[in-house]
Amino acid sequence: MTPERLRALLDEVARGKATPQKAYDIIKDIPFEDIGIANLDHHRVLRTSQPEVIYGKSKTIDELTRIAKAIIAKMNNLLITRIDKTKARVLLKLSKKLRYNERGEIIVGVFEPVTKAGHVAVVSAGTSDRYVVEEAAETLAILGNNCSVVVDVGVAGIHRLFARIDAIRKANVVIVVAGMEGALASVIGGLVSVPVIAVPTSVGYGSNFGGLSALLGMLNSCSPNVTVVNIDNGFAAAYSASIINRRIAATGDQQ
Amino acid sequence: MTPERLRALLDEVARGKATPQKAYDIIKDIPFEDIGIANLDHHRVLRTSQPEVIYGKSKTIDELTRIAKAIIAKMNNLLITRIDKTKARVLLKLSKKLRYNERGEIIVGVFEPVTKAGHVAVVSAGTSDRYVVEEAAETLAILGNNCSVVVDVGVAGIHRLFARIDAIRKANVVIVVAGMEGALASVIGGLVSVPVIAVPTSVGYGSNFGGLSALLGMLNSCSPNVTVVNIDNGFAAAYSASIINRRIAATGDQQ
Amino acid sequence: MTPERLRALLDEVARGKATPQKAYDIIKDIPFEDIGIANLDHHRVLRTSQPEVIYGKSKTIDELTRIAKAIIAKMNNLLITRIDKTKARVLLKLSKKLRYNERGEIIVGVFEPVTKAGHVAVVSAGTSDRYVVEEAAETLAILGNNCSVVVDVGVAGIHRLFARIDAIRKANVVIVVAGMEGALASVIGGLVSVPVIAVPTSVGYGSNFGGLSALLGMLNSCSPNVTVVNIDNGFAAAYSASIINRRIAATGDQQ
Amino acid sequence: MTPERLRALLDEVARGKATPQKAYDIIKDIPFEDIGIANLDHHRVLRTSQPEVIYGKSKTIDELTRIAKAIIAKMNNLLITRIDKTKARVLLKLSKKLRYNERGEIIVGVFEPVTKAGHVAVVSAGTSDRYVVEEAAETLAILGNNCSVVVDVGVAGIHRLFARIDAIRKANVVIVVAGMEGALASVIGGLVSVPVIAVPTSVGYGSNFGGLSALLGMLNSCSPNVTVVNIDNGFAAAYSASIINRRIAATGDQQ
Amino acid sequence: MTPERLRALLDEVARGKATPQKAYDIIKDIPFEDIGIANLDHHRVLRTSQPEVIYGKSKTIDELTRIAKAIIAKMNNLLITRIDKTKARVLLKLSKKLRYNERGEIIVGVFEPVTKAGHVAVVSAGTSDRYVVEEAAETLAILGNNCSVVVDVGVAGIHRLFARIDAIRKANVVIVVAGMEGALASVIGGLVSVPVIAVPTSVGYGSNFGGLSALLGMLNSCSPNVTVVNIDNGFAAAYSASIINRRIAATGDQQ
Amino acid sequence: MTPERLRALLDEVARGKATPQKAYDIIKDIPFEDIGIANLDHHRVLRTSQPEVIYGKSKTIDELTRIAKAIIAKMNNLLITRIDKTKARVLLKLSKKLRYNERGEIIVGVFEPVTKAGHVAVVSAGTSDRYVVEEAAETLAILGNNCSVVVDVGVAGIHRLFARIDAIRKANVVIVVAGMEGALASVIGGLVSVPVIAVPTSVGYGSNFGGLSALLGMLNSCSPNVTVVNIDNGFAAAYSASIINRRIAATGDQQ
Amino acid sequence: MTPERLRALLDEVARGKATPQKAYDIIKDIPFEDIGIANLDHHRVLRTSQPEVIYGKSKTIDELTRIAKAIIAKMNNLLITRIDKTKARVLLKLSKKLRYNERGEIIVGVFEPVTKAGHVAVVSAGTSDRYVVEEAAETLAILGNNCSVVVDVGVAGIHRLFARIDAIRKANVVIVVAGMEGALASVIGGLVSVPVIAVPTSVGYGSNFGGLSALLGMLNSCSPNVTVVNIDNGFAAAYSASIINRRIAATGDQQ
Amino acid sequence: MTPERLRALLDEVARGKATPQKAYDIIKDIPFEDIGIANLDHHRVLRTSQPEVIYGKSKTIDELTRIAKAIIAKMNNLLITRIDKTKARVLLKLSKKLRYNERGEIIVGVFEPVTKAGHVAVVSAGTSDRYVVEEAAETLAILGNNCSVVVDVGVAGIHRLFARIDAIRKANVVIVVAGMEGALASVIGGLVSVPVIAVPTSVGYGSNFGGLSALLGMLNSCSPNVTVVNIDNGFAAAYSASIINRRIAATGDQQ
Repeated sequence: MTPERLRALLDEVARGKATPQKAYDIIKDIPFEDIGIANLDHHRVLRTSQPEVIYGKSKTIDELTRIAKAIIAKMNNLLITRIDKTKARVLLKLSKKLRYNERGEIIVGVFEPVTKAGHVAVVSAGTSDRYVVEEAAETLAILGNNCSVVVDVGVAGIHRLFARIDAIRKANVVIVVAGMEGALASVIGGLVSVPVIAVPTSVGYGSNFGGLSALLGMLNSCSPNVTVVNIDNGFAAAYSASIINRRIAATGDQQ
Repeated sequence: MTPERLRALLDEVARGKATPQKAYDIIKDIPFEDIGIANLDHHRVLRTSQPEVIYGKSKTIDELTRIAKAIIAKMNNLLITRIDKTKARVLLKLSKKLRYNERGEIIVGVFEPVTKAGHVAVVSAGTSDRYVVEEAAETLAILGNNCSVVVDVGVAGIHRLFARIDAIRKANVVIVVAGMEGALASVIGGLVSVPVIAVPTSVGYGSNFGGLSALLGMLNSCSPNVTVVNIDNGFAAAYSASIINRRIAATGDQQ
Repeated sequence: MTPERLRALLDEVARGKATPQKAYDIIKDIPFEDIGIANLDHHRVLRTSQPEVIYGKSKTIDELTRIAKAIIAKMNNLLITRIDKTKARVLLKLSKKLRYNERGEIIVGVFEPVTKAGHVAVVSAGTSDRYVVEEAAETLAILGNNCSVVVDVGVAGIHRLFARIDAIRKANVVIVVAGMEGALASVIGGLVSVPVIAVPTSVGYGSNFGGLSALLGMLNSCSPNVTVVNIDNGFAAAYSASIINRRIAATGDQQ
Repeated sequence: MTPERLRALLDEVARGKATPQKAYDIIKDIPFEDIGIANLDHHRVLRTSQPEVIYGKSKTIDELTRIAKAIIAKMNNLLITRIDKTKARVLLKLSKKLRYNERGEIIVGVFEPVTKAGHVAVVSAGTSDRYVVEEAAETLAILGNNCSVVVDVGVAGIHRLFARIDAIRKANVVIVVAGMEGALASVIGGLVSVPVIAVPTSVGYGSNFGGLSALLGMLNSCSPNVTVVNIDNGFAAAYSASIINRRIAATGDQQ
Repeated sequence: MTPERLRALLDEVARGKATPQKAYDIIKDIPFEDIGIANLDHHRVLRTSQPEVIYGKSKTIDELTRIAKAIIAKMNNLLITRIDKTKARVLLKLSKKLRYNERGEIIVGVFEPVTKAGHVAVVSAGTSDRYVVEEAAETLAILGNNCSVVVDVGVAGIHRLFARIDAIRKANVVIVVAGMEGALASVIGGLVSVPVIAVPTSVGYGSNFGGLSALLGMLNSCSPNVTVVNIDNGFAAAYSASIINRRIAATGDQQ
Repeated sequence: MTPERLRALLDEVARGKATPQKAYDIIKDIPFEDIGIANLDHHRVLRTSQPEVIYGKSKTIDELTRIAKAIIAKMNNLLITRIDKTKARVLLKLSKKLRYNERGEIIVGVFEPVTKAGHVAVVSAGTSDRYVVEEAAETLAILGNNCSVVVDVGVAGIHRLFARIDAIRKANVVIVVAGMEGALASVIGGLVSVPVIAVPTSVGYGSNFGGLSALLGMLNSCSPNVTVVNIDNGFAAAYSASIINRRIAATGDQQ
Repeated sequence: MTPERLRALLDEVARGKATPQKAYDIIKDIPFEDIGIANLDHHRVLRTSQPEVIYGKSKTIDELTRIAKAIIAKMNNLLITRIDKTKARVLLKLSKKLRYNERGEIIVGVFEPVTKAGHVAVVSAGTSDRYVVEEAAETLAILGNNCSVVVDVGVAGIHRLFARIDAIRKANVVIVVAGMEGALASVIGGLVSVPVIAVPTSVGYGSNFGGLSALLGMLNSCSPNVTVVNIDNGFAAAYSASIINRRIAATGDQQ
Repeated sequence: MTPERLRALLDEVARGKATPQKAYDIIKDIPFEDIGIANLDHHRVLRTSQPEVIYGKSKTIDELTRIAKAIIAKMNNLLITRIDKTKARVLLKLSKKLRYNERGEIIVGVFEPVTKAGHVAVVSAGTSDRYVVEEAAETLAILGNNCSVVVDVGVAGIHRLFARIDAIRKANVVIVVAGMEGALASVIGGLVSVPVIAVPTSVGYGSNFGGLSALLGMLNSCSPNVTVVNIDNGFAAAYSASIINRRIAATGDQQ
């Protein structure tokens, strides 16, 4: 509920075009749908190419089914993240338009076409990080971004990174996905002049402590153009990258 | 053993109505029953509508069965928390009055009717937190509290919360259940004038570290009417809420 | 801004008694005062005996002076917590009604009389915890609560606690202040039937890790009537205790 | 050294316009100046309105003086962050164009005029967080961004935030500065559609563990448009915000 | 190899009763048996009633079998700790004298009779801690200690503890086993004048962090007669208790 | 209050030798003295050679003076631990019998002669650990134990330890004081057959994290005769060692 | 790409023997092979006896198969670390030259003979650490090092270590593998004059926190010739040991 | 005491050239000097160019003076690490040959000339890390190593590193000193074929947690030739580097 909309609504009430009760109800009841176990937040679903997003982990298959059904009924695009194979199998039956990316543990449902704009690069340190890369790439696609994926260019063999630096430098935003020490974010941060969004992954040996080593490394990056999201959170990195990239692309496109 | 009871007992001894040995035995042996593997604490079970509570995790099915039998034999109301599906199936056979809430991993046994008083609200940030909501709601019910459940009103879409604020404000105590950053406790704390009991949950991505992020968030709440219980501990939140709510309701009722 | 007030305001607009712009301004601008570096939240200051509260740490003496002056100008009661001796000396010059409790690092200013109700007990494990006890006791007093202080009854000599249990049992709420292992909260939790609010303190040797040992101990209390606030946070414990105690006392008093 | 420049240089060598030795020296020696104790990275200093940045903490006054002198000699704009009062006093003598912001512990030196573009909002939860706000605001200014500062709108009195939401929504990027539980980042993340860069601060009581509570809270934000920088790192937040804002403003301006 | 034995050996060499080479071999090769994958440390196995001890976790069933066989061949008493049901089934076939305590995950083999002396008490807070109690009790028995087990006397119902205090006070050493906040160690520490060895257990909810809460609680005990062993380490507690108890009993017996 | 004393008191009441009220008062008021800010626990002070102990840190000089005066008035022996030089200077004026050990930050006051028995060894890894050694040694002395101090025998030069092993092996209990990795406890644990009480110290570089490295090392000792006290807690180690040593010596002496 | 090679390439361009484009392509594209999901880093595979290494964990069996095939096609020696039994079974089918070491969870493929030089010792504290010993030993072998394995010589029975010290002292580098408190690294560090590479293992009880206790212990070693690798990382220890040993052996051999 | 020496000594005893008592005394008393508060370990001081080392922190000036005097009396070379300016001033008076490096907080005393061999590179990420660089460089020098220092080549401007890679590649061992995310160790590890010893520093902002971020980053390095020492421990890195470098140089020199 923006201030502009509130003011407009008050205007209508003042001009007798709306009753106070109705205004109250609108203010209170607008932008979500209560399906008992969840409040579907349609506020976040913008007009074009924006999906509804469900966080799949910790929800029962019954809850997931009820939520997904309510969204599919509206024919909105749909992302279900962190969804394991067993649950995915059940959910895929809800619609033929749903597709499961097993490596990224994500279900994608495109019910209306997505127009892509701009360019985001997703760069990963190792093959083991691919589950996060897939989550990010699927999210970027359905949110309407062109996306380059550059994998396995970790700093232990930095020449591999330099060979791909052309592709990376074309992007408006770079997402860096890395586990272990997470050094790739700092190195790329120093090589590009655009924002870098770093995703620490839980990949690694003993003292990585479930991704803590990469997380702390990225937070302490000496490259000041690096910001960080939660461990393994390819979705949030892609979401933030998308709003930056599309905004730049949009203003650029208007020329 | 209150000081009053000690004094009374000493009086009886002084007046020859009780031998010292008997007094000693009473002092020593009152208020629990030793069943070998456990000491059932009937001290905590007050006259009306108070259940006996068993913490189910880390106990073997054999231990649980022996403890539950001893309680059922007394026809006291009963709660068994943290009880998985497999163990629940065995325990349910002990009495037809036992009911299993699978989402809340809790067994409820009502052997004598419960009178409800006052009003407690249980508010949760997301659908994924429902296992804790269920544990709290079942506990509140058997302890004799009216209870409103408001789910999926996390701060990322704060308008959803505002739409439900009426229901929440009617409560004598509000239990807030949230994982991830646990911000909901602070926001609600600022919107109500009653005590808020916050339950951090272990729901979330990587750096939530099993609920630590929500726990620290709630402990550091800038709303001074927020107190906190252990991660996922819906039972304790409900227990504390109940003693506050029923005390307020009771004094109110006496008018 | 409660729903009731929103509805009322909309009514006025509908009946032409208020312009939409004015309604918008009210909704937007009510309940705080912007003094440039801070927004004084008068929303929290209720009619009787409620003080304004300033968190003193991390604020410069210049900022504190400006904020305190704005509050004193309104003749509201005032608490400034976490205020060291040097800053206190400067602030005390603002009004003769300000008093500094050095042990509790708290400034109290009573500008209108406080009516006390009910009863809260503050119990501490050791003399070293007294700084938190003082903060809690001063807060309880100015918030309008009768308060008993019982100090140095730690569990290593549990008979000292039992000697005072009478006083403690009279309270509507018990605040337990303890460092080291924080066991006192669990023990008292098992001895009383009212809510216990536990304040871990940073008092102790090496592996107390600045209060972490007591904090974890209290969060994991086996007594379900214990809730916890942040380390050393006597203020928040007192604030929550006050709203519980005064609510019980108020409903009781109305009889 | 971009691929384009490498290719161009190789062309010159091929056409005899450059000797291999000279090419090697260029590749090796370009973009920094070695002053013995430090390598000044002029690579990062772009043509317009970009300052050189020195991290002041852990450097001796002698090292700081030598580095600052080398930069001032080039008449580049200059930022020295994390600089305490004592060191600042010495450094200010190097040039009359240097100015010290004591609250933000930052020295600013504007040697060539800065053109501002776009709009970034810096929002903080409490007055105590102002040291980070100042660091961010000074950095934004010298990097060429218009900047709105909105302070003391923490979630415990959320109406204060709503009163300022207009100003916040005008920004291309929002920086949220908050200590304690850091909930403000999630709440603002849910209210705006632009990127939010969250800066946890070390402000708070006991279990904030030097900013860890706010850091974890922000990393676990349920608002997916939130990315995070290091604790108290107002500089990095401003730096990232600037490259996003100026890019959007630049593409917009070209229309 | 004590200094006395070294001196004696050197004497023999000096008197020509031993060759230098033989002396060297003795010094080097005495007190263990190398079976390839392990060096069995017979040094620790004293004459009477001392078992050999194998730590079962992280060893393969093949390794366990080879080690157990070598020990059984010597007819020494035997303890295998941390041994799950599957491995236990295989090992029990090695000798009919082996017995498996499933709750304590421990195999006991008595090949020569054990004489018991003195008295150790094992006290636990809850039924859930019984797996550690069993490990400690089995170890105490085979090491030759009389042992009283007192279970489920946690501090939330402290009267249960007082009812058993007679039995506890008879012991030369008290082992306290507790999870959650571990407060029982401090309380008992204050009630007895003998050494208390505290065993934190991993039993509990969320923020017990695998036993860390009880561990820190016990380390920070305000009772100075409490020392601590590792989480869940009933074996080490029993081992230390045994050497204290048997030494006291032995000196007492000689009277 | 032991059961024996309770029974005796009840007998007196039964035989009319004590009124119930008097019995109640005795039960409640015995064994401590309330001096307002503290409850002096004379229960712990046994007849011979046992001192009263005050934990000095976190107490103000005013509080310390009041407590110390009350104890000195009774001519009991006295220990004040963790007392810095400034406070010590003030307290020493209370009696000429007080002596300050600056390295151990401990004040000792011997008002009645102490008889020593048995033998405890205090072994430390490095000279830097001496502050803990001094605290332990002073405590052992006033508690009535003969004590050998062996310093600077850390495992990096293990031959230094072997040269002193004779002295160490004569003790009934060995206290091992070590920082850094704390390995000395395990090594000594393997070389002696008596109980080892390990004191981790906060001595060391970076990742010792204030003594955590030594603490974890000692808790995870592979020598099962090692128990652990809190970081830098020489007092508690000495206290536990004393009750073990004196019990063994006492039973031995009675022969 | 070394500076020497860059200079040589530039020379060729200068002398017309290479076009700039070709030079650019070489600089960019040399030393790895892109197989889509991974960039195989042949840069690290030196001429003789060096294997390619794949980190098996977190990779799918499909990814592993594709990577392994590409390497086997080149007939390079091959190591696949952290590979469980199920995946190993599939991979072994790729070539008869592949061998699986189940205890070390490692696949070895020797396609060209390895010449061994020098001598490395691998010493472990307990039989439970053998999985890391096996990983290290297999790595050392295929990297061309002679290797002695000395197991089960933990510090609790230090005489076992002394009996083997001869073998250990012959090595150019000693790898020490230990869990629990990790004290073995410090002890051996003090007994040898060569570099010690310490590998903490995750073996142990409760507060070893997945190897943290051994890790911190080794990092804080008082023996200055100890350096540390990640928890359970036998591979990295062996890799570093190999480059040290072979360099010493090589220079020694040239005499 | 090596086995060879033990055997030789036994031979002498056997041949009557030494009495058993004398042999025992030699075995026991050799290689250190007991000066009361410390055992000076001359065992570690080899013939040529090896200094005695004193860890200065946590020792009193009195203790330091006594230890330093004992060493100077022997005219051995001397290092005192972690020594602040105040203590240094006192110690420098002991001999004119002592020199204080204030930035590295280290005292160096060269009493007999040092012959240098081989080559070690010390590379640091930033100027702020210089205190560790100085400690390492001074240690390398007195231990007899040629040393190149390359500072301020952090990964945020990786071209600065490449410009110096020639110098770095000439070394037999590379010490990498870095704070914040510590990424430099991994990058250099991938660029050189010699051992890299990484020293995390405590330099950085908030979530570096006193060097933990760099420590974890380095331990989790994806470059397998990286081993790690404790935070800020330039001395240990230099010590290990020296024994590797001098061994390689020595075997090389013998050709």
